[in-house]
Amino acid sequence: MRIVMIAAQSLDGFISKHAEPGTGFTSPEDKAYFREVVAGFDVGVFGAETYRVSREAIRSRMSGRLLRVVMTRSPARYATDAIPGKLEFTQAPASALADDLRARGFRDCALLGGSQVHSSFLASSIVDEIWLTVEPVLFGGGTPLLAQAADVRLDLIATEKLGGDTLLLKYRVRR
Amino acid sequence: MRIVMIAAQSLDGFISKHAEPGTGFTSPEDKAYFREVVAGFDVGVFGAETYRVSREAIRSRMSGRLLRVVMTRSPARYATDAIPGKLEFTQAPASALADDLRARGFRDCALLGGSQVHSSFLASSIVDEIWLTVEPVLFGGGTPLLAQAADVRLDLIATEKLGGDTLLLKYRVRR
Repeated sequence: MRIVMIAAQSLDGFISKHAEPGTGFTSPEDKAYFREVVAGFDVGVFGAETYRVSREAIRSRMSGRLLRVVMTRSPARYATDAIPGKLEFTQAPASALADDLRARGFRDCALLGGSQVHSSFLASSIVDEIWLTVEPVLFGGGTPLLAQAADVRLDLIATEKLGGDTLLLKYRVRR
Repeated sequence: MRIVMIAAQSLDGFISKHAEPGTGFTSPEDKAYFREVVAGFDVGVFGAETYRVSREAIRSRMSGRLLRVVMTRSPARYATDAIPGKLEFTQAPASALADDLRARGFRDCALLGGSQVHSSFLASSIVDEIWLTVEPVLFGGGTPLLAQAADVRLDLIATEKLGGDTLLLKYRVRR
């Protein structure tokens, strides 16, 4: 199962603007790209805070084949939101979750944030690629791309312009 | 006088790797590019910490027309290092320093770090361009590109590969 981390950040590495939750700062071009690219995956994994911030938007787009898996310390809290095979909640750590998804036959897994999910998967050395949208802004503060210190070496696969000033950079993670 | 901020960072926005001072993480391609590009400027401005970390390297390359200006709260501490017209120390804030350099006839000013110098010039809205080397690494911690929260909008001028996996991104700062 291929695991691809998909994120959008300011040029200086923040996935939120200051203390504002969510990705309101991203360009229309990134939002369109994001919707399209995620549809190409069969499972998307994200954290509970991402779920809380985007709950309505996520629940309004439950058609399609994508399984959404929310990583949370308290799956029971979300029992009434869960729809097996569509929207699941788990407290499994990254590597166990990846093993489980692989065993269930999933082939393409997108990591959809936030920084804690990025860090836990990278720390387990199970991320294959990083597709990073770089918006033409500097924030000097906000939620960082990664939640913990890391030392990850990447190989550049591709650079692309998404819109006028928005870049999409694709990297392979060295193991 | 054109003011260009020249920096190298990890993909996630750190100009140092964790607590390691200096730019030991940058690629040979960036180091070669940096030496060459700085030679095209007539003045380079950087902070006292950058000076302390790179003092020997800086003092061994004092030929050429480049004036180095070190921003420090304590210029007197460096009185014996100072060489007027070659290596100067100032406690002037960013905008006063820029005015002074312009009045002295300098045409091309490079900002050479660190994060405090970046932030003080950006806060004064006197930076024209940012030339940012992006190394193919994730650190998850270190010295951030900017020292303070900001909200700076950029226009992408150019993207270029410096070496195999190292990118050079050039932006114009919107005023």
